Amino acid sequence: MNTRAKRLIEEGRSFLLTTHIDPDGDAIGSVFAFAMALGTLGKEATVYLRDRIPYRYEFLPAPARVVHAVPEGKYDAIFVLDCGSLFRVGSGHDRIGAMAPIVNIDHHDTNDHFGTVNLVDPGASSTGEIIYRLLKSLKVKVDPDMAVNLYTAVFTDTGSLRYDNTSLEAFKICEEMVKAGVRPSWVAGMVYESHPKERFLLLGEVLCTLATYGERIAMARVTSEMFERTGTNREFSDGFVEFIKEIRGVEVAVLIREIDKQHHKISMRGKGAVDVAAVCNGFGGGGHRNAAGCRIEGTMEEAEEKILRALAPEGCTKDG
Amino acid sequence: MNTRAKRLIEEGRSFLLTTHIDPDGDAIGSVFAFAMALGTLGKEATVYLRDRIPYRYEFLPAPARVVHAVPEGKYDAIFVLDCGSLFRVGSGHDRIGAMAPIVNIDHHDTNDHFGTVNLVDPGASSTGEIIYRLLKSLKVKVDPDMAVNLYTAVFTDTGSLRYDNTSLEAFKICEEMVKAGVRPSWVAGMVYESHPKERFLLLGEVLCTLATYGERIAMARVTSEMFERTGTNREFSDGFVEFIKEIRGVEVAVLIREIDKQHHKISMRGKGAVDVAAVCNGFGGGGHRNAAGCRIEGTMEEAEEKILRALAPEGCTKDG
Repeated sequence: MNTRAKRLIEEGRSFLLTTHIDPDGDAIGSVFAFAMALGTLGKEATVYLRDRIPYRYEFLPAPARVVHAVPEGKYDAIFVLDCGSLFRVGSGHDRIGAMAPIVNIDHHDTNDHFGTVNLVDPGASSTGEIIYRLLKSLKVKVDPDMAVNLYTAVFTDTGSLRYDNTSLEAFKICEEMVKAGVRPSWVAGMVYESHPKERFLLLGEVLCTLATYGERIAMARVTSEMFERTGTNREFSDGFVEFIKEIRGVEVAVLIREIDKQHHKISMRGKGAVDVAAVCNGFGGGGHRNAAGCRIEGTMEEAEEKILRALAPEGCTKDG
Repeated sequence: MNTRAKRLIEEGRSFLLTTHIDPDGDAIGSVFAFAMALGTLGKEATVYLRDRIPYRYEFLPAPARVVHAVPEGKYDAIFVLDCGSLFRVGSGHDRIGAMAPIVNIDHHDTNDHFGTVNLVDPGASSTGEIIYRLLKSLKVKVDPDMAVNLYTAVFTDTGSLRYDNTSLEAFKICEEMVKAGVRPSWVAGMVYESHPKERFLLLGEVLCTLATYGERIAMARVTSEMFERTGTNREFSDGFVEFIKEIRGVEVAVLIREIDKQHHKISMRGKGAVDVAAVCNGFGGGGHRNAAGCRIEGTMEEAEEKILRALAPEGCTKDG
């Protein structure tokens, strides 16, 4: 473990911790566990989250101080977790960047090393894994609340131990956390079984639009009419693209969601053969090789055409 | 480990192994791993499966002899895996029961101890877990092929480590299997991302029938017409009940699949509040507290009514 980071923790008294906008399980679980750990070391830890906590992560045990506006206090160091770049913290990131030394803790391979100290390990399954190691090196005893946070961080960021980043280490940490008091089915119930019924009514309508092209591109639509009919909004369709990705042989899964008749939000998933970040980049978006997104101007039909042209410049036809 | 079972293995030379009809990942993974293990001990092992292997498990490394008709050979013992009762083996179970001593290896708490020797542990996450222990006690070195089978058995029977039966032991075995050569994302890709497109067209139609009752019972239908329209069959709808279970607040998820106009196959999932095995038992079926099934005679509407009466004897109304 990095000795400068360790010294900052040992010598400091008051810390600010933060993570990215639209926080996921790894972001929240890591930042909460670390704040609790600093508390057990007799330090003051304040967590700043720009956004509210998504409903599926509301069950996570929270540390004493969580604020949603950049606090005014004086800090001995700022820990920025799970952010490839400082701007991912959202509004106030520039002020935060000037407050105190920054410790950048992350596992994204696109991390731009924005910290004064950088604990960046693209080989780690999750930021939760790096925090776990940090707690070990700080000799923090992981209590059940920290354990639930770390378990959720690792478990969700590996897609419940299904994604490519599912390492032996990820299993070991989950096992340790179960020993420390986590009940796996309780966490899974909270994270994966807290969807409103309307989500599935919407999914039903969306899947009825599913089409494949040359057996390797799969695409489905979400329209405003569907939201209206099922009493839902765009948030209800988060993750639908993952279902499309489950089709055998499909290399790229695409979900097109209507913002309005002339603007569409695109979510793209790959399985390795195609760099979907590069494709989305071409439309002004971005992401990772296997998970990216962008916005496209034009009607639904125009958006579909543009995507197909980008994914199959040689042309492709809709499968029967 | 049971000394009689161990002696049967050590003293015997030729064994028949089998499991239940409609085999799942635990059934196939366990029976394949065990057959391979017997092979390394210099024994002859024949696997009898009444049904063909579902497409999502076709990737599992198979032992040398897998047959789909009850073989005529002479065996020193018959190992029946993952079956609560002998009839779950399907056609030929009576002939099999008379062939040789039966070793009943299972983790269902409804197991009726039909074996000459019974290795039944309802505390085990899966039959795979019992087989893992058996291999340890027989000092079999788990090779990568056995590891993929055992990993798949444990991982799928715990709902990718999400169900109530996800014990510390389940994590430990998965970890051991990763050490023995399993790549978790490869297995997950095979099991969870090998679905034909038609599965999702069918899912779309099925979700359009989703209804809840008193917010705690969720039910959806699969009809023969849907199979025809989407070019699918019953196998394509395996696991649909899990989606229904993801609805917040729902205590029992029910999927009713048409066999013919007068017969329906029921899959039920609970989240702890209701013992769905008891409910399905009432219809001549069985399973676990949180996952069970049965068949019901009558039309779709009659089946629905019978289920609702069993789940809510006090009556309940369909939510708007």
